[in-house]
Amino acid sequence: MASKTYTYFIVSTPAPFVAHVEINRPQKLNAFIEAMWLELKTVMDALSVNPDVRAVIISGAGDKAFTAGLDVEAANIQGISDSNDVARRAAAIKRHIQEFQDSISSVEKCEKPVICVLHGYSLGLAIDISTCADIRIATANAKLAVKEVDIGLAADIGTLTRLPKVVGNFSWVKEVCLSARIFGAEEALRVGFVSQVAETKQAALDAALKIATLIATKSPVAVQGTKELLNHARDHTVADSLRYTGVWNSAAIQTSDVERAMLSGLQKTKPRFEKL
Amino acid sequence: MASKTYTYFIVSTPAPFVAHVEINRPQKLNAFIEAMWLELKTVMDALSVNPDVRAVIISGAGDKAFTAGLDVEAANIQGISDSNDVARRAAAIKRHIQEFQDSISSVEKCEKPVICVLHGYSLGLAIDISTCADIRIATANAKLAVKEVDIGLAADIGTLTRLPKVVGNFSWVKEVCLSARIFGAEEALRVGFVSQVAETKQAALDAALKIATLIATKSPVAVQGTKELLNHARDHTVADSLRYTGVWNSAAIQTSDVERAMLSGLQKTKPRFEKL
Amino acid sequence: MASKTYTYFIVSTPAPFVAHVEINRPQKLNAFIEAMWLELKTVMDALSVNPDVRAVIISGAGDKAFTAGLDVEAANIQGISDSNDVARRAAAIKRHIQEFQDSISSVEKCEKPVICVLHGYSLGLAIDISTCADIRIATANAKLAVKEVDIGLAADIGTLTRLPKVVGNFSWVKEVCLSARIFGAEEALRVGFVSQVAETKQAALDAALKIATLIATKSPVAVQGTKELLNHARDHTVADSLRYTGVWNSAAIQTSDVERAMLSGLQKTKPRFEKL
Amino acid sequence: MASKTYTYFIVSTPAPFVAHVEINRPQKLNAFIEAMWLELKTVMDALSVNPDVRAVIISGAGDKAFTAGLDVEAANIQGISDSNDVARRAAAIKRHIQEFQDSISSVEKCEKPVICVLHGYSLGLAIDISTCADIRIATANAKLAVKEVDIGLAADIGTLTRLPKVVGNFSWVKEVCLSARIFGAEEALRVGFVSQVAETKQAALDAALKIATLIATKSPVAVQGTKELLNHARDHTVADSLRYTGVWNSAAIQTSDVERAMLSGLQKTKPRFEKL
Amino acid sequence: MASKTYTYFIVSTPAPFVAHVEINRPQKLNAFIEAMWLELKTVMDALSVNPDVRAVIISGAGDKAFTAGLDVEAANIQGISDSNDVARRAAAIKRHIQEFQDSISSVEKCEKPVICVLHGYSLGLAIDISTCADIRIATANAKLAVKEVDIGLAADIGTLTRLPKVVGNFSWVKEVCLSARIFGAEEALRVGFVSQVAETKQAALDAALKIATLIATKSPVAVQGTKELLNHARDHTVADSLRYTGVWNSAAIQTSDVERAMLSGLQKTKPRFEKL
Amino acid sequence: MASKTYTYFIVSTPAPFVAHVEINRPQKLNAFIEAMWLELKTVMDALSVNPDVRAVIISGAGDKAFTAGLDVEAANIQGISDSNDVARRAAAIKRHIQEFQDSISSVEKCEKPVICVLHGYSLGLAIDISTCADIRIATANAKLAVKEVDIGLAADIGTLTRLPKVVGNFSWVKEVCLSARIFGAEEALRVGFVSQVAETKQAALDAALKIATLIATKSPVAVQGTKELLNHARDHTVADSLRYTGVWNSAAIQTSDVERAMLSGLQKTKPRFEKL
Repeated sequence: MASKTYTYFIVSTPAPFVAHVEINRPQKLNAFIEAMWLELKTVMDALSVNPDVRAVIISGAGDKAFTAGLDVEAANIQGISDSNDVARRAAAIKRHIQEFQDSISSVEKCEKPVICVLHGYSLGLAIDISTCADIRIATANAKLAVKEVDIGLAADIGTLTRLPKVVGNFSWVKEVCLSARIFGAEEALRVGFVSQVAETKQAALDAALKIATLIATKSPVAVQGTKELLNHARDHTVADSLRYTGVWNSAAIQTSDVERAMLSGLQKTKPRFEKL
Repeated sequence: MASKTYTYFIVSTPAPFVAHVEINRPQKLNAFIEAMWLELKTVMDALSVNPDVRAVIISGAGDKAFTAGLDVEAANIQGISDSNDVARRAAAIKRHIQEFQDSISSVEKCEKPVICVLHGYSLGLAIDISTCADIRIATANAKLAVKEVDIGLAADIGTLTRLPKVVGNFSWVKEVCLSARIFGAEEALRVGFVSQVAETKQAALDAALKIATLIATKSPVAVQGTKELLNHARDHTVADSLRYTGVWNSAAIQTSDVERAMLSGLQKTKPRFEKL
Repeated sequence: MASKTYTYFIVSTPAPFVAHVEINRPQKLNAFIEAMWLELKTVMDALSVNPDVRAVIISGAGDKAFTAGLDVEAANIQGISDSNDVARRAAAIKRHIQEFQDSISSVEKCEKPVICVLHGYSLGLAIDISTCADIRIATANAKLAVKEVDIGLAADIGTLTRLPKVVGNFSWVKEVCLSARIFGAEEALRVGFVSQVAETKQAALDAALKIATLIATKSPVAVQGTKELLNHARDHTVADSLRYTGVWNSAAIQTSDVERAMLSGLQKTKPRFEKL
Repeated sequence: MASKTYTYFIVSTPAPFVAHVEINRPQKLNAFIEAMWLELKTVMDALSVNPDVRAVIISGAGDKAFTAGLDVEAANIQGISDSNDVARRAAAIKRHIQEFQDSISSVEKCEKPVICVLHGYSLGLAIDISTCADIRIATANAKLAVKEVDIGLAADIGTLTRLPKVVGNFSWVKEVCLSARIFGAEEALRVGFVSQVAETKQAALDAALKIATLIATKSPVAVQGTKELLNHARDHTVADSLRYTGVWNSAAIQTSDVERAMLSGLQKTKPRFEKL
Repeated sequence: MASKTYTYFIVSTPAPFVAHVEINRPQKLNAFIEAMWLELKTVMDALSVNPDVRAVIISGAGDKAFTAGLDVEAANIQGISDSNDVARRAAAIKRHIQEFQDSISSVEKCEKPVICVLHGYSLGLAIDISTCADIRIATANAKLAVKEVDIGLAADIGTLTRLPKVVGNFSWVKEVCLSARIFGAEEALRVGFVSQVAETKQAALDAALKIATLIATKSPVAVQGTKELLNHARDHTVADSLRYTGVWNSAAIQTSDVERAMLSGLQKTKPRFEKL
Repeated sequence: MASKTYTYFIVSTPAPFVAHVEINRPQKLNAFIEAMWLELKTVMDALSVNPDVRAVIISGAGDKAFTAGLDVEAANIQGISDSNDVARRAAAIKRHIQEFQDSISSVEKCEKPVICVLHGYSLGLAIDISTCADIRIATANAKLAVKEVDIGLAADIGTLTRLPKVVGNFSWVKEVCLSARIFGAEEALRVGFVSQVAETKQAALDAALKIATLIATKSPVAVQGTKELLNHARDHTVADSLRYTGVWNSAAIQTSDVERAMLSGLQKTKPRFEKL
């Protein structure tokens, strides 16, 4: 993978076909300013179509935090519009929110599976980002919270939209969103927000790398189709998703990966798949 | 909060900005007759727009039951129509069910968060009501059941509609709805139907009050927006809810609560928010 | 129930009003060829309208497997079309997938509740079938996997569509679908994929029979309405399902089962319901 | 039909089973103030369940106008909230709009068909109301307009929601909504907004009465079901509406009206149907 | 095309790749009995996958009628169930309606475009069938009506579901459905129910054949994709249909038909396309 | 409006607050190559947020064509992917189509109303673009066609998705899409595809300018809200759009434009609105 330098993110290749994205502003607990979320989209859009990438891991740089959320200075609603008219300010705010949402949604739109490692402070935007990811792993010391009501607003970058769809316990979802209280990794595991807890950040990264590496050995046609079809299912009826699936696979199944995968299965060899 | 007297409900104010609604027909295990569900809507509609209320707790009066469900006399389908024509009876029944549904849905439509304390017998209508609430807490002795098939009908006041959306374990949901068997608080906690279990009714009420009080200290703009957006997300695609969220917050974020909340956060003081 | 002989399925009546369907190709670990999934639809469509059936149990014949999934020979994508044109092959594949989906969906469309006992190897198609069932029980030794990515394709017969709707833990759903790893009964119970685990296949069948028998004692009008309304709720908004429910029950509630069920409740007798 | 006196509406019975509702504030061109739209809902809700009513006609009293729209005094947005906080004002406005929408939607929710006669000035709210009606007739002199942009706001009581669904010419719909220009009856007929044009108000009322009387001779089970199913179709997929239709008619078809209607058809007599 | 004999339909091949289906019970004005609609599905399902068919024309045999609708004897609701229980009768009726709907929907599900020639009496079921077709042509003498309310029921085989989606004049749609009045070809053309009117049945068949023949010269990949995507659009949001379209064409565009069609365009020759 | 130079488009300001976009490749009948549709998005995105623009007109440069559609060289499907694997080619094609769709959809997403003047050859992409516009005007000599089936493919850039939603005559929509035949301005007017026909290109531009100028005099808050709400209505149920409308206007109505517009109405003066 051709290396590329970003201002607020480190992108490395810990294993073949696996990219590791680190939010890199550790001195500020990886808190986000506008330039960061715009760059996050640049990073994710590039990985999405990079044929050398088959799985992505996201974590924060440093020991303290995945991210403490929005940097206070970035939360300057006043500066978004210089009009005093409520409707004109509303229009400017709406555009601002949409651009912010689009940036974070790039994690979900990435065609390759994304594994999110939540460690240390994982507040506000951390939940928005992680609900866009496909798989969530937390460290034992993670401090998680849907923090937005504590600064006087309803979370608007995706948490309230996606959290009810990734966790099947609406009573818990509402409680943590309405109260903004901090919850830990064990609670997150119990309710199904994360699917694994590791003792340390390193152990969590190792676990993420293990899953990512496993996924990277599979047919990328199969893996990327699986991600797409699962996300489609989340938002559609069963009938609609079955129909979409049939059309999707009418092309995808014509891949040579099926034969290669089957042969490898019979020969107990490791299949090699063309890039995608 | 101006006190108001109801026939079947006690409404009190256990803490500032917190209302406590008690179903008050304990001698009948708080079983519902038609006048009760109509009055429930009156109660909830009033709390919904009462600026002195920021969180609501619902429980049953007495030690025995949240509610044992529909009172048998109220289940008199025969009396709904005096026609012998199947279609005309059907029309009358449909109107009756819709009015009943509307009454119970007032718990969901209440703009303020509702915490439901399920204690003792919590059968039939108890599940309909509690799935409309935002947060569910049960006492250790709670006897819960989707009881309707035992009286020959499919639950039609909301349980079958909402239970699959508040609990992410469809196998369990179907089992309890098809079998009408009683389940306890621990099981309810394990599958995610309730998010907390307390030893006694008093302990459960204390836990509810603790959450309600916490929520009541937050910005009502943020809290009420959070409830609305979570409920919207339940019924819409991610794309649709992100769009709705952007429009919602284009007005909501212009509130002075954001500044007040942030200042209080920095100054470690308790913010005071204008009524809503 | 009039007995009927099938080639790949054994259908028996272990208790009144309870049908037991066994996938019967144990020498091949109950792996599916095309004739089998077509016959499965024949079996389920017949049970769906058979008035002597009120609940259905599905398991595999033999000790080794519910089903090991698709038989390799059936996976011959090449043979589906004799054209070399990609679009024409796609059209043929799409028709093939739709017919396959329709066959498996017959388990979901069956008007009577279906309880699925997953035992031994329960791979690929086993998950497609079981997510169509209403209630899932696993044996302690069950080896479960969404196996499709291992043969180079995204699962297209229903698993990716229905699994996110029966299990409310999207991180786990994605992990097992993307990695194709095997998971066991305890894990399936913890995340809510199955609602019960039994030590042995016999114990699991006994548990299934117990639930089936209980359901079979209830009003079939109430039971079948409950299944329909729960499945409707999964795919619709709350408002839509409440409306549908009102119309559904405007006819269903006019049944004599309500009176019979209530009387039996008062008299502590066992109600007898007309066939449906 | 028991006569009932309203403040802003005249309700009469020009023919058996036909109600005529007149907006009665002719001295103000039937412009609406808040008390009027609240009363409109009272009127329509009563007609909806009145068994002596099978079809409803709506027109304006006097020669000049169906309605000139919202009375300027009622458009006092300032008075809706006494808070200066944008979010709190927004909350009050939202509640106000919803109540207003609910009032006008009562015309659509009326279970009996509603025929709207648009005559003279038919501006703003006239379009909101008429798009809720089932059948629209205009007089040759009608002056129609989606007038709201001329007072600085997007129409929010239903026109922008329903007009694209009652007229299949999106270019025209957008042009009249964006420009607020007045259009006449012939244009309305050509694009399909109205289905008939009459020379005078009286001729239009006669035409409406002719249709209403014809509808009133039909089975009310059939007529009311037809209205419900057409409105359902507007908002749902074909598959969803076919499913809903099947359930609806599973009760409705059991009516004795079918036999009566068929017999009358054979015997060339006029059928008499039980009230609904 | 291999000829096949049906009982109630004549299927011929008036031109290469064009099938003509005639409803063949002229002595009864082509009125439908149950065996007919079941056979219609057999006919359409066969044409749908017949590679020698690229367009289908439907008309009635004889001069008098496309179809006069349901045969009275087939409308025997009584005979559908031998139970006296309302709910059990409702269940039987619902199954009956669904099977009937499925039969007629086969016209819509046919993968090849269907052109419907409405001539003479075209009542009730004629509208159900024609709204399933892609293109509608009427003869000048056609007598059309949504006739169902005249026999005491709301049309339930598709008219009320599809008519509002094929005609963008909701006022007219409601008027003809609620009044059951007969309308002629010119009116049908004006409101957009049919797209062409011909003087005689033969002229209408000629016009249909001309369109069918034209369509049959085009790439079947392009034509069948166009039908599928237009029907998808009718039932989905713009965003959803764009997404579905992209997946559909990701396979379809790989066809050699594109090159052939382009070459033919340049060389002014008639392209030949492989069967589909 | 700051002038900006584009390669394939001329953007001018024929009147205050009105932008005119001309597709500028007249020597090739304004046929599109990839660089053009990418630049179209750049143009539209800029106009969308340009406060000096309140309405946009789109036409082709030169006398001959709005656009003859896709340039043949741009239709090179072969070059999209260098893989021979069907699935990998499909993935590349899908990305290509989505980017193309996104580019054209910028016309719909433009927050300001867009008026499209169709003149001369208006084939293929001309229909995709014009169905994204809000208002369509044609010249008497316009030659319109959904041309894609003639090059072997189903239109995939939006026509098949949007045409059924802008024209309420599904029979006609299907006929022109399936046959690729050319239709003229009068036919387009009759079926409601365009809302106006002008004799010459200049007359059409004058008509467009007249509407654009009229719209530009209105409150931009009202106009832009009207466009947004009409587009929302197209894709949502009535209930959903009413809810969205209430939230939208809860901010928008707080604008000072309402007061200014009302005052101007009373004083018969021309209101001046702040930019948006």
